[in-house]
Amino acid sequence: MEERLIYLDNNATTKIDERVLEAMMPYFKQEYANPSSMYNFSKKSSNAIKEARGKVKDFLNAKDEKEIIFTSCGSESANTAIRGFLNYNDKTKKHIITSAVEHPCVLNVYRNLEKQGYKVDYIGVNSNGEINLEELKDKVKQDTALVSIMWANNETGILNPIEKISDIVKTKNPDTKLFVDGVQAAGKVPIDVQSANVDMLGISGHKFHAPKGIGALYINSKTMITPLIIGGHQERGKRAGTENTPYIVGIGKAAELACDNLQYEMTEVKRLRDKLESGIVKSIYNARVNTGAAQRVPNTTNIGFEYIEGELILLHLSDLGICASSGSACTSGSLEPSHVLRAMNVPFTAIHGSIRWSLSRFTTESEIDYVLEKLPQVIESIAKISPYQKELAQLKSLRA
Amino acid sequence: MEERLIYLDNNATTKIDERVLEAMMPYFKQEYANPSSMYNFSKKSSNAIKEARGKVKDFLNAKDEKEIIFTSCGSESANTAIRGFLNYNDKTKKHIITSAVEHPCVLNVYRNLEKQGYKVDYIGVNSNGEINLEELKDKVKQDTALVSIMWANNETGILNPIEKISDIVKTKNPDTKLFVDGVQAAGKVPIDVQSANVDMLGISGHKFHAPKGIGALYINSKTMITPLIIGGHQERGKRAGTENTPYIVGIGKAAELACDNLQYEMTEVKRLRDKLESGIVKSIYNARVNTGAAQRVPNTTNIGFEYIEGELILLHLSDLGICASSGSACTSGSLEPSHVLRAMNVPFTAIHGSIRWSLSRFTTESEIDYVLEKLPQVIESIAKISPYQKELAQLKSLRA
Repeated sequence: MEERLIYLDNNATTKIDERVLEAMMPYFKQEYANPSSMYNFSKKSSNAIKEARGKVKDFLNAKDEKEIIFTSCGSESANTAIRGFLNYNDKTKKHIITSAVEHPCVLNVYRNLEKQGYKVDYIGVNSNGEINLEELKDKVKQDTALVSIMWANNETGILNPIEKISDIVKTKNPDTKLFVDGVQAAGKVPIDVQSANVDMLGISGHKFHAPKGIGALYINSKTMITPLIIGGHQERGKRAGTENTPYIVGIGKAAELACDNLQYEMTEVKRLRDKLESGIVKSIYNARVNTGAAQRVPNTTNIGFEYIEGELILLHLSDLGICASSGSACTSGSLEPSHVLRAMNVPFTAIHGSIRWSLSRFTTESEIDYVLEKLPQVIESIAKISPYQKELAQLKSLRA
Repeated sequence: MEERLIYLDNNATTKIDERVLEAMMPYFKQEYANPSSMYNFSKKSSNAIKEARGKVKDFLNAKDEKEIIFTSCGSESANTAIRGFLNYNDKTKKHIITSAVEHPCVLNVYRNLEKQGYKVDYIGVNSNGEINLEELKDKVKQDTALVSIMWANNETGILNPIEKISDIVKTKNPDTKLFVDGVQAAGKVPIDVQSANVDMLGISGHKFHAPKGIGALYINSKTMITPLIIGGHQERGKRAGTENTPYIVGIGKAAELACDNLQYEMTEVKRLRDKLESGIVKSIYNARVNTGAAQRVPNTTNIGFEYIEGELILLHLSDLGICASSGSACTSGSLEPSHVLRAMNVPFTAIHGSIRWSLSRFTTESEIDYVLEKLPQVIESIAKISPYQKELAQLKSLRA
């Protein structure tokens, strides 16, 4: 029996595009030179890195490829940007602003900085997950060194108005730098670091069909950092370590393909996501879309199933070969409800039964149809054993 | 015309073993789950990581696989160990001991720590490149937080007596921790972290036929660190970032193969290295082995060609398809003579013309024969245009 796999957890990680793998292969085989070496044999490797850097530059619309450095992941990009900037710069400015719904990897960096004497304000969001811009405006002060806001949220897909955020920040304090966690936006919506006026932006290859283990960081030419990994002169002294040529080539190719597929992502992937979302809400009486009508990336929907347990839903789905998740993979295993949904004040009746569905350009219509066919039975079988039978019955009659 | 490639720069990087690539391939293709996810689809990935961790544990003879964490490179391993240990622990102990011939990536970390108020002593070496153990013994004090000595030197291949070094350190101060940069020893000589009694040891996959972009760090269970990359709970909270499953599988397989090939390395690779070395010294009158009779890894020889320029030699060799180097790839492009050879007091007549040759298990006898056939002409043609004609003539008559 062939095992079915319906992968709807593309915000956790994505399948490598075959063309990305193909582009990497020569650098796993014959072209294995250390790209920093001086002999002819290393030329192809160092040229390939240069070309990949250009592709990532184009992907983010950076001004200069010197503004792109390669890292080993999105977490390293964020750590390098945030801590590297603070380390290099005026250490008397101790104020940082971020949002309550950033990725755990970013929030943990700030919790750590609090222990080192930084004061961090965590801006709240409304019930749709949209950031409170008035609160942001209020908080920017003379000693605000850094504002750090994600472009798109990993759990809800909510898009933040980065250009507007940059305006607010820079108007109040032109010296405050803006770091944007672009991990969940890259490949899903256009990113233009120049028009959005961001100072630093991190991305992770494996969220847009490059392998896990490669990231990139945009740092504009006016922003200085100390390296996180100290050592050799690689990446213009901003990141030591022998260059991972195959993966750098891979993220370059993935960036190119992401540009090519952006339109598809924003139309066809969106159509399938909308079909999944409206299909679920239509056929399952205790389902609610957690994000209301807010602007989102085209591939994500976060749906709460009231009065039942999300972990149970995922277990049943896993048995059917369907992969989805209740939050970020980085916090999986934890039984605490997601900090993102809590910040949104998702009602307690829905927060424990909330599932993130995230599609990709490889998602097919028949996969969505299969989920829509199977999910109602799954939810019904779990609802049957819920201790909230009265509430479920009320809900059913209310939405009938 | 087929291009010839004789790769004798394996201390800079190595070719990926085909069996390593083969082991990685499923994780580039169908097994792309995020290993931290909870559904069945992620099981193969998380099991593969567990298996790889066991292989690296065996490779280093660690006591427990929990003592192994995966990183993105040797530089990250060193940064994590050194800075992570110092950050976590008693910050009143401000003394560090290292050697003058450590890899630039490690030395740069210490230069940086000096700026942060640490006092760093750099132990010297003798003319063979062997570390001064008396000086080491002298320097260990009550406030010595860390001693950091490489197992094998990247430029000369010199092996340090790590077990003896550990004894010296721990006898004088049992609380002092020992970090060993094992990057150039792994796969060339047996490494046993338990019998050598080291607290932390870093390795880099691409030095033993895994890809560039993956490293590992042994931290014994008695040694605590803060993570370098802060974020998710991966690697037991010691290294955030989505696990790079294919490369982790790759370094595991490469570690297994390195164990299998260790005997070959220490006999056959050594035989070819010795053949190259003695052949050069025999046929080229201005050649000198820079390391005397000191203990070395079996694959490396560092040979000075007196009164001529190393960069010119490398250029000629590159045209013949022969890859060698004048020092570490991380400092290539610099015209300064190597800090390692300077610490050894290699005479100025030889230091500028010193070439590192580093073999691997893929080096063939015919490749060595080809180098021995071509090199004398290369050296002679360069000697002809040297400004030191008188000195060269004297040397020739002396060694005739």
